[in-house]
Amino acid sequence: MSDLAAAQRAFRDELLEHRLLISMGVDGLYGRSGTFEHIVECINAAFSAVGDPDRPEVMRFPPGIGKWQLEKSGYLKSSPQLAGTVHSFFGGDREHRAMVEQIESKGDWTAGQKTTEVALAPAACYGVYPAIATRGPLSADGALVDVYTYVFRHEPSIDPARMQMFRQREHVRLGTAAQALAFRKLWMERGQAVIGALGLPFTVDVANDPFFGRTGKLLASSQREESLKFELLVPITSTEQPTACVSFNYHRDLFGAGWDIKSADGAAAHTACVGFGVERITLALLKHHGLAPAKWPAKVRDVLGL
Amino acid sequence: MSDLAAAQRAFRDELLEHRLLISMGVDGLYGRSGTFEHIVECINAAFSAVGDPDRPEVMRFPPGIGKWQLEKSGYLKSSPQLAGTVHSFFGGDREHRAMVEQIESKGDWTAGQKTTEVALAPAACYGVYPAIATRGPLSADGALVDVYTYVFRHEPSIDPARMQMFRQREHVRLGTAAQALAFRKLWMERGQAVIGALGLPFTVDVANDPFFGRTGKLLASSQREESLKFELLVPITSTEQPTACVSFNYHRDLFGAGWDIKSADGAAAHTACVGFGVERITLALLKHHGLAPAKWPAKVRDVLGL
Repeated sequence: MSDLAAAQRAFRDELLEHRLLISMGVDGLYGRSGTFEHIVECINAAFSAVGDPDRPEVMRFPPGIGKWQLEKSGYLKSSPQLAGTVHSFFGGDREHRAMVEQIESKGDWTAGQKTTEVALAPAACYGVYPAIATRGPLSADGALVDVYTYVFRHEPSIDPARMQMFRQREHVRLGTAAQALAFRKLWMERGQAVIGALGLPFTVDVANDPFFGRTGKLLASSQREESLKFELLVPITSTEQPTACVSFNYHRDLFGAGWDIKSADGAAAHTACVGFGVERITLALLKHHGLAPAKWPAKVRDVLGL
Repeated sequence: MSDLAAAQRAFRDELLEHRLLISMGVDGLYGRSGTFEHIVECINAAFSAVGDPDRPEVMRFPPGIGKWQLEKSGYLKSSPQLAGTVHSFFGGDREHRAMVEQIESKGDWTAGQKTTEVALAPAACYGVYPAIATRGPLSADGALVDVYTYVFRHEPSIDPARMQMFRQREHVRLGTAAQALAFRKLWMERGQAVIGALGLPFTVDVANDPFFGRTGKLLASSQREESLKFELLVPITSTEQPTACVSFNYHRDLFGAGWDIKSADGAAAHTACVGFGVERITLALLKHHGLAPAKWPAKVRDVLGL
């Protein structure tokens, strides 16, 4: 086992032993204790304290989106290996008996499952674009939406900071290119201020997403060259390979054109979003300040309202 | 269209027009507005005000459970048609190109998806039993757990009170038969008191779950005869067919035996749970008191802390 893998496993074991996380027998899938959730709620409150004065429209989506929305989003072109679709049983009594036999004999009982109209949300903001698109052209002020959603990424890992199901708290800005870029610049400052106030060490860097396959290499290179995505990275189980805890994204008119969202001037809207990975920030706090929040530095507890 | 279906559609349209719910283009899958979510939070707070003094252990699970946990739970024997499994893409560049072509030609691109180790949670309490099972025999006091989870049921419907993804807030009691039954009796009183204080009309009745197929008919009949599940029903879109908003379940030793959870005396634990359907209660409040919470009766607003 590499040093990194050993450090990840050791941290995960520590979190499970202290019952901050609860094993569900699958890498990347965990229950959370009341203490863990309370920290998550406090991080959300800290985010709200900074973002609420902008008076965003609040939208809360379930952990799923329409399969048609996933298809239309373009996510399956760039990251098919991370997406999840929901399948179910559509058979009758006979198929049911066969399925139960498969379960009892440890066979693949899911072979007969068929696709439903539901897919899992790959990012919190994916519900926003189709919802805004139905409302006609944006006003000159554009739009600002506050979202918070459980998302799914199929990447089983022993790293507790790489979960398969986790929550993203985001603000999404829709409008002109200038509005989207100004929003991102503002939140890059705010994001650093929030994480700094939590007593966490961090760096900010251009992101390097693991896009899929050959096309993915081109996508990744253009993402870097055009600085479309920045990440705020905090060392959790490694200083060499720190963990992205906040991301600052500028999508150009990718979603505006894809969903036919028009700015007031009739052009395809440009969009940007800031996303806080609330579980990752919680894990960073537990790593840097210790597993007992009651003993965290007074200043950090103050900022969180703990 | 039947009168019932027309009433359901009318209420759903009204909720969408007032932007309390947000269409995702799939029956039973909706975004929630800030107002809707605030009511949900207040219902949770009202539940906590009643239940917190019992000092439950808080567990919060993601919307998924291990597929092995779903298999072992027995849910696939009784309700296979409602369960969801998560599938993903495991191919290479060639398979990816074929998949993207299927998407572009509106073909079935999900045919190549394969099962992952993740399934969707069919009920909030399903994460609790395996977690408690790992801890060894219960103490003489048994255990009490507070859970809150997004669950999935594959039953697309135009009825806004029958969502595919919704949240259940539960207390789960594990111990002897006497402890489980006393817990259920207590919460049947508490549940009626809470819903009554919210100014909602209700009845309580033995439940009639739509178990699957031939075996399902036997399960349903034994559920009724042994009064294993009671529901608190509130008329939302129909007085003849009111909606179950709270359920009170006694599982005998089904989960205790299935998960090998032992009482202090060495016998398989008996379990019970109370579940509040927070979206359904929110919809009932919106139906009975109007779509503007600011205009709800002062007494109801008081109880909710609105």
